[in-house]
Amino acid sequence: MNTIENIYGDGIGYVKLIDRMGDDFTPAEDARTSTDKGRLGPEKDTALQERLLVDNHTSPFEGVVVKFEMCVPLFVLRELDRHRTLDKNSENDPFEMVAPEENMRKWFSRNEMSGRYIQMPDLYYHPRAVRGQSQTNKQGGSADTLQISQEVADEFKARGKEISKAARELYTWGVEQGIEKGLARIYNTQNQYTRIRYTGSLKNWFDALNLRLPSVVLWECRQPVEAVLEMLRANFPQATKSWKELVYDGCRLTGAEKDTIRQLLEGAERTEVSFEIIKKLAKKIGANIDP
Amino acid sequence: MNTIENIYGDGIGYVKLIDRMGDDFTPAEDARTSTDKGRLGPEKDTALQERLLVDNHTSPFEGVVVKFEMCVPLFVLRELDRHRTLDKNSENDPFEMVAPEENMRKWFSRNEMSGRYIQMPDLYYHPRAVRGQSQTNKQGGSADTLQISQEVADEFKARGKEISKAARELYTWGVEQGIEKGLARIYNTQNQYTRIRYTGSLKNWFDALNLRLPSVVLWECRQPVEAVLEMLRANFPQATKSWKELVYDGCRLTGAEKDTIRQLLEGAERTEVSFEIIKKLAKKIGANIDP
Amino acid sequence: MNTIENIYGDGIGYVKLIDRMGDDFTPAEDARTSTDKGRLGPEKDTALQERLLVDNHTSPFEGVVVKFEMCVPLFVLRELDRHRTLDKNSENDPFEMVAPEENMRKWFSRNEMSGRYIQMPDLYYHPRAVRGQSQTNKQGGSADTLQISQEVADEFKARGKEISKAARELYTWGVEQGIEKGLARIYNTQNQYTRIRYTGSLKNWFDALNLRLPSVVLWECRQPVEAVLEMLRANFPQATKSWKELVYDGCRLTGAEKDTIRQLLEGAERTEVSFEIIKKLAKKIGANIDP
Amino acid sequence: MNTIENIYGDGIGYVKLIDRMGDDFTPAEDARTSTDKGRLGPEKDTALQERLLVDNHTSPFEGVVVKFEMCVPLFVLRELDRHRTLDKNSENDPFEMVAPEENMRKWFSRNEMSGRYIQMPDLYYHPRAVRGQSQTNKQGGSADTLQISQEVADEFKARGKEISKAARELYTWGVEQGIEKGLARIYNTQNQYTRIRYTGSLKNWFDALNLRLPSVVLWECRQPVEAVLEMLRANFPQATKSWKELVYDGCRLTGAEKDTIRQLLEGAERTEVSFEIIKKLAKKIGANIDP
Repeated sequence: MNTIENIYGDGIGYVKLIDRMGDDFTPAEDARTSTDKGRLGPEKDTALQERLLVDNHTSPFEGVVVKFEMCVPLFVLRELDRHRTLDKNSENDPFEMVAPEENMRKWFSRNEMSGRYIQMPDLYYHPRAVRGQSQTNKQGGSADTLQISQEVADEFKARGKEISKAARELYTWGVEQGIEKGLARIYNTQNQYTRIRYTGSLKNWFDALNLRLPSVVLWECRQPVEAVLEMLRANFPQATKSWKELVYDGCRLTGAEKDTIRQLLEGAERTEVSFEIIKKLAKKIGANIDP
Repeated sequence: MNTIENIYGDGIGYVKLIDRMGDDFTPAEDARTSTDKGRLGPEKDTALQERLLVDNHTSPFEGVVVKFEMCVPLFVLRELDRHRTLDKNSENDPFEMVAPEENMRKWFSRNEMSGRYIQMPDLYYHPRAVRGQSQTNKQGGSADTLQISQEVADEFKARGKEISKAARELYTWGVEQGIEKGLARIYNTQNQYTRIRYTGSLKNWFDALNLRLPSVVLWECRQPVEAVLEMLRANFPQATKSWKELVYDGCRLTGAEKDTIRQLLEGAERTEVSFEIIKKLAKKIGANIDP
Repeated sequence: MNTIENIYGDGIGYVKLIDRMGDDFTPAEDARTSTDKGRLGPEKDTALQERLLVDNHTSPFEGVVVKFEMCVPLFVLRELDRHRTLDKNSENDPFEMVAPEENMRKWFSRNEMSGRYIQMPDLYYHPRAVRGQSQTNKQGGSADTLQISQEVADEFKARGKEISKAARELYTWGVEQGIEKGLARIYNTQNQYTRIRYTGSLKNWFDALNLRLPSVVLWECRQPVEAVLEMLRANFPQATKSWKELVYDGCRLTGAEKDTIRQLLEGAERTEVSFEIIKKLAKKIGANIDP
Repeated sequence: MNTIENIYGDGIGYVKLIDRMGDDFTPAEDARTSTDKGRLGPEKDTALQERLLVDNHTSPFEGVVVKFEMCVPLFVLRELDRHRTLDKNSENDPFEMVAPEENMRKWFSRNEMSGRYIQMPDLYYHPRAVRGQSQTNKQGGSADTLQISQEVADEFKARGKEISKAARELYTWGVEQGIEKGLARIYNTQNQYTRIRYTGSLKNWFDALNLRLPSVVLWECRQPVEAVLEMLRANFPQATKSWKELVYDGCRLTGAEKDTIRQLLEGAERTEVSFEIIKKLAKKIGANIDP
């Protein structure tokens, strides 16, 4: 299972695993460089790898390398290449915060198509569903989104197609007229498809999944990342399972949250600890608490 | 001289030096960490720094840090973030080669605007001159470019403006109708302006100049880079001069070219060495030789 | 407060803040690149920076840069340059696990003394207290350490000094006899002092503190890192306080731990959730629970 | 040929190729991501790869990954992990210059043994030949080295062995007495053997060879690197040959040197160009010119 076709339902976008180095227990083998013990069987190797993940000692996961090829629209590539934080107070102050986090550009080796040398293929992404903006979270995608009427959706798609087509025609005509390719393409729309190969370590890919799998990420960006997860599961089932359960499904506590949990574990009543902290923590981990 | 306004002549694009750490002789000081000698005056410090540059020992140039803010179109940002090689045989095989080289994303810290949180400003780049494609070099910009008639240029600009405007209207309308911001913007054209801050060491900036200053680079990409060079010259005059003369204005020789030069220096006649190599070398370094 | 002298009590080791770029609220300013709002005052800037830290969106902390110079023994430098994980089952299987985590070499720019060019200074570290091995943790330093008698401590120190001295004499004599410096020094002991400059972003330094401040880290390695923390506090008081409380004093939960906490917050009794998980979690966060 | 044993002639040091991803023509395949052309046969693929190397477009060489394990002394590891420049004026000013260049730590993933968890093996390197210091080059190893008498060599080796032995005994005794392992080892000498795994791209390895193969590098450091070269040649014969001829055997010209060569190629007599530049260039490329 090394190719996932049709990630957007339009027969164009895909993700392929091109090559890999190492297997499910290479991290344990590398971690034991010191002792010459090598591999000690799936059970012990898994136990070691899980301890490494829990303790955030991830260099042994850098000795496994995976190369994927993706065909995705330009606007997806731009999002994959960085990360944005949530603005939790969007209603009040929509301009407050933008905080990018570098990701795939920084740690991956990339080879991408270039419109300066060849004519970019005449392939454009058009959304099937037109989603509404989330009201509590600027990144969209959550449950409480605005409803978009069929009429608005249809008009958006029709105008979008028309603009893409006009931009493509201008580009093709410009190239034919002898305009510099790098200049002719500047009016192209960002839904144009491109193709890229990323080479990264298993640790790099886990980090990328951490940033892009969450449901707040744009739907179009999550699709290639979910394809990556599926292929990592097929190729490194145990390591991927350990990472998913121990890292991805977990969370970070602040100092105050840790203290509060400590008090609770030591027997304090919920009324004895800060309700403010409990409330935030409950929201973070999805607990339904009584007000 | 820490701001260069109006890099594209449209009153929008600019580059600002936001902050810096270190000065013109910090590399020499850092290189002498070992000896407690610190600085020895401009002459000795320059001599040391030039030796470091010649010998490609650049870590002392990583102890100087500069932060720039740029306002440039999206298609320029995409080019700044990577590098493309020339295809010297474009006539014969236009599809032969695309070879990206990572650059600014990889070594710089970036903070960029995001259209997922705010409405991107209604600012778009439109070329004043419409350049023709180079006939010998796919990256365009060299002397032997196709001539573009006034009519074609005018039509290109008019259609480009219209498409940008239609795309902008669709985006604005879509956001008003409640469409998810990240989705509403996918039809936006790549000539839209964005703003970014890059933090990098002096070495990082020299490397970026190496990749983007050459005349084969797209004109729109060269403008912000030339602004960076001008501000580096104003803030680190000696180090920038040394780098320019010793590194940027120089070139690499292959083993065969080095051997040929050695033979010539040792007194061989030009007829005694490979004319094939001489010809390629002459082209590389811009020498006019008789056939 | 930009120099901390005498970190080992022998008048030799020290840490100096050489230079810096940015201040306490530069991360907020950089994070708002998108909105042109810049700084909004300490309160709002702190609130933004704390959200960035909690959400692990750390690129705005890469726009602040600090350069430190350290004088430390070689064996400390080697540890600073990497990280080792704990082996929690050391009694049973002392060879089980070694899992290094790259650190300061990878993200910092370094300039270090070199014994290949100059005679390394005749400065050696000797411990004042001779600590016993921890019985529960191979990294030593915790409370349950073996007691070392005065006699053993004295003998260790005396023999150590003698060996250092013999090694130094061999080195000096070798260099005088004309032996290649790089070869003459191979018998030198690892308690020899060296000097180094590290340039890193505030994010890099926070990451380094995360790895080296914990009490399980070798005492000699913690001293320079604690000096760094003290100087970051003096120069970036608010950002350092936020990081300390929100990140350093916090912890990570695995998926299972998060689920258990969720159940407890939703009203489950401690007897209703996995005691195995509660026990591990209590140990991790230092809670005293009844068995 | 994936293991080279006995690199120091003492039966201890070795280098092993543990794993790899990609083959001799993977760089060409990755460079053609854009065109879907994939591989075009050894001749065309080699031609493309050579152009990439000449133009310094190396990201396609980052899609090939190789993992080596090395057993080398600590002082070799320390040198592999960095690079030092030459001081060409050593006679006049022996303290003038130290200019480290980061290398293997920075771009490679590493897993090394740790003396904090296990007893380091009782293995120490002792030189067979005791080399003299070079008189023109502080890094030693060149032809004009001081002669070391048999007596001096014997005394150096005998005292070195004695010190290593005393240090080892102190360490072993200290651990037995319950001294913290991390502390007990601080008097250990730097000729102790350690073991490490490096994972890097083909580009990383080429860069490492560039820094460590030259004859000015310490003999003990060159041995593992020459073993790496030999195994790269066995596994990637064409790519390694291209790199060796085009990059490693070549050199850089400064702006002034390039201008001088240009003048010579255009027909200028040697008497018409700067003799100062000719002299330096001749020295750099090993040409014997008449004064």
